Amino acid sequence: MSRTLRVAVVGATGVAGQQALVSLDGHPWFQVVTLAASPRSAGKKYVDAITDPATGHLRWACDEPIPAWTKDMTVVDAQTLNAADYDLIFTATDSDSAKVLEPKFAQTTPVISTTSAFRYEADVPIFIPGVNMDHAALLETQKKNRGWKGFITPIPNCTTTGLAVSLAPLHAEFGVTGVSMTSMQALSGAGRSPGVLAMDILDNVIPYIRGEEEKVERETQKILGKLTGTSIVAADFPVSATCTRVNVIDGHTETATVGLKRSASVDEVKQAMREYGKDIVAMNLPSGPKHLITVMDDPFHPQVRIHRDLEGGMTTSVGRIRPDNLLQNGVKYVLLSHNTKMGAAKGATLVAEFLLQKGFIKG
Amino acid sequence: MSRTLRVAVVGATGVAGQQALVSLDGHPWFQVVTLAASPRSAGKKYVDAITDPATGHLRWACDEPIPAWTKDMTVVDAQTLNAADYDLIFTATDSDSAKVLEPKFAQTTPVISTTSAFRYEADVPIFIPGVNMDHAALLETQKKNRGWKGFITPIPNCTTTGLAVSLAPLHAEFGVTGVSMTSMQALSGAGRSPGVLAMDILDNVIPYIRGEEEKVERETQKILGKLTGTSIVAADFPVSATCTRVNVIDGHTETATVGLKRSASVDEVKQAMREYGKDIVAMNLPSGPKHLITVMDDPFHPQVRIHRDLEGGMTTSVGRIRPDNLLQNGVKYVLLSHNTKMGAAKGATLVAEFLLQKGFIKG
Amino acid sequence: MSRTLRVAVVGATGVAGQQALVSLDGHPWFQVVTLAASPRSAGKKYVDAITDPATGHLRWACDEPIPAWTKDMTVVDAQTLNAADYDLIFTATDSDSAKVLEPKFAQTTPVISTTSAFRYEADVPIFIPGVNMDHAALLETQKKNRGWKGFITPIPNCTTTGLAVSLAPLHAEFGVTGVSMTSMQALSGAGRSPGVLAMDILDNVIPYIRGEEEKVERETQKILGKLTGTSIVAADFPVSATCTRVNVIDGHTETATVGLKRSASVDEVKQAMREYGKDIVAMNLPSGPKHLITVMDDPFHPQVRIHRDLEGGMTTSVGRIRPDNLLQNGVKYVLLSHNTKMGAAKGATLVAEFLLQKGFIKG
Amino acid sequence: MSRTLRVAVVGATGVAGQQALVSLDGHPWFQVVTLAASPRSAGKKYVDAITDPATGHLRWACDEPIPAWTKDMTVVDAQTLNAADYDLIFTATDSDSAKVLEPKFAQTTPVISTTSAFRYEADVPIFIPGVNMDHAALLETQKKNRGWKGFITPIPNCTTTGLAVSLAPLHAEFGVTGVSMTSMQALSGAGRSPGVLAMDILDNVIPYIRGEEEKVERETQKILGKLTGTSIVAADFPVSATCTRVNVIDGHTETATVGLKRSASVDEVKQAMREYGKDIVAMNLPSGPKHLITVMDDPFHPQVRIHRDLEGGMTTSVGRIRPDNLLQNGVKYVLLSHNTKMGAAKGATLVAEFLLQKGFIKG
Repeated sequence: MSRTLRVAVVGATGVAGQQALVSLDGHPWFQVVTLAASPRSAGKKYVDAITDPATGHLRWACDEPIPAWTKDMTVVDAQTLNAADYDLIFTATDSDSAKVLEPKFAQTTPVISTTSAFRYEADVPIFIPGVNMDHAALLETQKKNRGWKGFITPIPNCTTTGLAVSLAPLHAEFGVTGVSMTSMQALSGAGRSPGVLAMDILDNVIPYIRGEEEKVERETQKILGKLTGTSIVAADFPVSATCTRVNVIDGHTETATVGLKRSASVDEVKQAMREYGKDIVAMNLPSGPKHLITVMDDPFHPQVRIHRDLEGGMTTSVGRIRPDNLLQNGVKYVLLSHNTKMGAAKGATLVAEFLLQKGFIKG
Repeated sequence: MSRTLRVAVVGATGVAGQQALVSLDGHPWFQVVTLAASPRSAGKKYVDAITDPATGHLRWACDEPIPAWTKDMTVVDAQTLNAADYDLIFTATDSDSAKVLEPKFAQTTPVISTTSAFRYEADVPIFIPGVNMDHAALLETQKKNRGWKGFITPIPNCTTTGLAVSLAPLHAEFGVTGVSMTSMQALSGAGRSPGVLAMDILDNVIPYIRGEEEKVERETQKILGKLTGTSIVAADFPVSATCTRVNVIDGHTETATVGLKRSASVDEVKQAMREYGKDIVAMNLPSGPKHLITVMDDPFHPQVRIHRDLEGGMTTSVGRIRPDNLLQNGVKYVLLSHNTKMGAAKGATLVAEFLLQKGFIKG
Repeated sequence: MSRTLRVAVVGATGVAGQQALVSLDGHPWFQVVTLAASPRSAGKKYVDAITDPATGHLRWACDEPIPAWTKDMTVVDAQTLNAADYDLIFTATDSDSAKVLEPKFAQTTPVISTTSAFRYEADVPIFIPGVNMDHAALLETQKKNRGWKGFITPIPNCTTTGLAVSLAPLHAEFGVTGVSMTSMQALSGAGRSPGVLAMDILDNVIPYIRGEEEKVERETQKILGKLTGTSIVAADFPVSATCTRVNVIDGHTETATVGLKRSASVDEVKQAMREYGKDIVAMNLPSGPKHLITVMDDPFHPQVRIHRDLEGGMTTSVGRIRPDNLLQNGVKYVLLSHNTKMGAAKGATLVAEFLLQKGFIKG
Repeated sequence: MSRTLRVAVVGATGVAGQQALVSLDGHPWFQVVTLAASPRSAGKKYVDAITDPATGHLRWACDEPIPAWTKDMTVVDAQTLNAADYDLIFTATDSDSAKVLEPKFAQTTPVISTTSAFRYEADVPIFIPGVNMDHAALLETQKKNRGWKGFITPIPNCTTTGLAVSLAPLHAEFGVTGVSMTSMQALSGAGRSPGVLAMDILDNVIPYIRGEEEKVERETQKILGKLTGTSIVAADFPVSATCTRVNVIDGHTETATVGLKRSASVDEVKQAMREYGKDIVAMNLPSGPKHLITVMDDPFHPQVRIHRDLEGGMTTSVGRIRPDNLLQNGVKYVLLSHNTKMGAAKGATLVAEFLLQKGFIKG
């Protein structure tokens, strides 16, 4: 690239928006030139927009410090943003706002979204870098269908990401016939508003996360589906999910029991996972991991607190790979995916990097 | 009964032994007349045997206060215990000691054990009250085989208990073809020595508990097996378990995905679970629950901190019952079982109560 | 008493109100005949008013199950409540509502309040049962001043309660010259709206609770002050508080360093604490503890999870009593008080019981 | 320096030793050439010495990954270590071993110790970099007294460090007359053997840490004492500590109430803290922080999870600075110090860097 792309972050005051700012901080290709949010924040300096007026307390939700360059930027009203002024727009609003804003922006500009607003539209691919970037061809269909110069492409629900990444090599190599998954999800997946109250999760497990299981089931099938002509044929194996919340800050742990079309030894499964994703790793993208999947042999691994930040939170760790006796050609394992890195804005940034390198976003 | 039974608790200084003392405190039928432990504790007053000499701190592991009557009892050496002096012996030692002590005791006296030492012997039933008490007939075989006047009967691993209880009505009504289970187990299941270090579990999930999955798989099949003549034919459906540890004090949460021989609606499953165990409930045993299974309709229930103590920790709570699309005639749910009540000494006490009422222990 | 008093609970849908219902459940003297709340809840059945319409999830915040008799009661609008219909009103609203409602109610009826709305008025005593019930004489002044037939009497902030209880015998016996206190407060003290987010407290300590230190300082001086004629002369020793939040559900732990007017040995301090409160204990009030203060000798005690529920959460546990070398005649200790029992509605109930027995509330 | 120093780490298999390896990993001046431990580990490869033989699980206690260069090093028996082969020895054993080993090593070689074995000897300075490095002159006395070519210098207890750092500027500028401190200490301060059991701290506070308060009181006075001729005259102000354990992994939070000889405004206190330590910061030592003290104005700060890693865990964060009304010219604040960085091996490394730069260790 000969130049840095001009980027707007929409929904910049929320948690997902803050994560976007962190993932774009010091980025070699993308420069955030505009922060947009709701009218309530518009006109304020960014640092003021996220400060509690009563106490002076900064409502900053990331472990990383707030990037210095954001502090004095004036927040603009997302509804009046002129999308044509940007090469790329990251949206991190709530889903209802996204339904209104994203199509407006996409008329002129590529939109990478962390929301679920358009995930289930037929002409909208849900990207996981390294897994289904061949679905990018669908973006042309979307542009044509909708008469847009830009496009919308959402990333999946953070609980889908690790499952789909771990299933991808199995599906490619051996064929997946079905999967039973139980998630033990982190608090940060619920955000801050309302988020999970400490009283509700201390010494506790919450056995239900509204809407989550349906998302995981549907998105996994779409992501591992096959692009045929101008549409994705969803993978037809059943995905049976039980999603729970545990008292962990960041990082989703998931147990998976998978049936395969043809028998595979534990070593073959490990090998397939270790080999997977070499293409995207080889592209050396700024936000990319060194291994799309990190296979672990210590039976006590992965452990979420210890391993969630491996490779910048962008690798999916898989351990305890062993045979399963329930499903035909069954194999089971435990996976760990960082829900606010690979499963959120940093994953979205990796998508943008890929699309730029491949020419879907103009550099 | 015309009299109170004389009971010895062996391994009385450990956590499981302390739980036995609590479950027998004020018992209408059983009186603990002897506390036995290792030679190191023998000769000491019980309260001294569990006091840290350096600080005076009482190493008492139960939420309930230490029963007053135990304090001044002199601990005897388990190896010199004369079993014939007792009507009933509860053992709560480590498994290696149990292998030596329990057969000695059983020559004269019924032994109810919380250890795994004899669980997998062919002539030893693993009881869960209300589920497989018909296996009690095997005790006669055991006595004959071994030339004992007494017998040994262990309770299952605490992670098996809830799963087996919840499967029992499904197996009886619809036939179980297989089950995939993920446990989120409490800290108290690991005991205190070594137990789980706080540093290892705070903000974390440990994806492995050594030996646990094998126990759950084997014990579930045995418990739900069929007594035929003088042996149990284990249930032949596969049990596929992934056992993890979460930061919860007491109470094991488990997700289960179950295939059935014949199709059952969610309502039929709920009905089968609600009806199950009425026989044992009707016996009105002192430690028994009012419902062997408590079915919950609120999708956010059961929650381990809130519901583990329901009915004295002796009911198995089941929620989120819904269809599963992975297994044939699949159904899935989340269950909760109190690992240090129904899954430990209080469950053992309930076994003893049953066996006494049915004449297997002499009153 | 020859009859049961008719009681209204105002703010019955909130956490403090729910605690009031639990503390009045099955009460021998008080019968809750009306539940009042904001207009939003008015007209609904109580169980519906606290149910999330989207999920059917019951928003019930107490460990104790919801009292069965509350479920079908129709919630009335607090603003239209006719106070004269009741013998006694418990208020558990937010402070702003209390400022409007309580004076209206007090025109005819005694009001026991868990809010801070009137705590700092000169003619309003802040009661801690057993500590300053002689301040009850001030209620007559209040009634005269304000032309009310009833009165308002608030309980203190939950963090004040344990400190004031523990200081009371020291002040009475030896004279207190000053105190430095650091609290480690439970999550339930922050309520549920907004409450403390799990993400904000896991693996963390929050070193500030807005407004809390000022309340503790001011209330402690008032409670330990002396009623002289028609006003309370606040105790004149300095109270220096640092209030923090730790990841504990219920129960406030506080460290206290206290200077005394005259020297006292550790044994004398323990003795003074053990003797204290015998008067109120002797009254045998339904909600009262057996010991106003429980002195502990094990240096590892009190521990909040283990001891918070001692004596129904109504005793103040004090341990680690030892000399302090910083303040003159210094003594220091660690105390534990249950913030949602003695420090909240159950403490308010105990106040009501006392006032009834002494004739300040008409039976 | 013209060369890299040869360093041995003794007690390399324990937690403190592992922290030493991390703090020396890639160090520009020090090269670890030998790992020593007990005879049990001697002769094994380091990675094997810390691996559980039954499960293959690596007992590595740091968040940072194990330095690659350590893995294949053969552990030597600490008792046979030839100290003369090294320029510098770090000891991280238990205190009893240190009493035997450290004097042997010091005959020829400087010993930096994380143990308490020699902290209270009259000719042994306890260093905190930036605070009392002028005490280094005492090392010559020690060498002369004991006829050693080397010396022993321990770092303080991890709970002392933050308190002493925060008091140092106050003592220097205004004179400290006394301090009351309550600590809320992290789990890692208790190490792993035995460490704190998760069951003992979840939803809990432990109000006592054996021996801790005495150490804090004694060491603070020694560190802030004045070197006069050949001995340190301990600071004569009282230090009154209450040390508790909370459920936090790393980082000690402490509340401090301090009396001053002369009155200081909050701004003067902040200024004194911000200015403090500029000398050592200016030395630009490899392990040093950019600010010895980081003063925070947001009343909700410092928070241990968020701020413990500031400046590599080597700064002491101080917030909530405000007047205190209990002590004369009182001021109070909350501080945070990283117990396994500045308070442990990394702090010891900083001491070594200073002593090398100043010529006390030969480069």
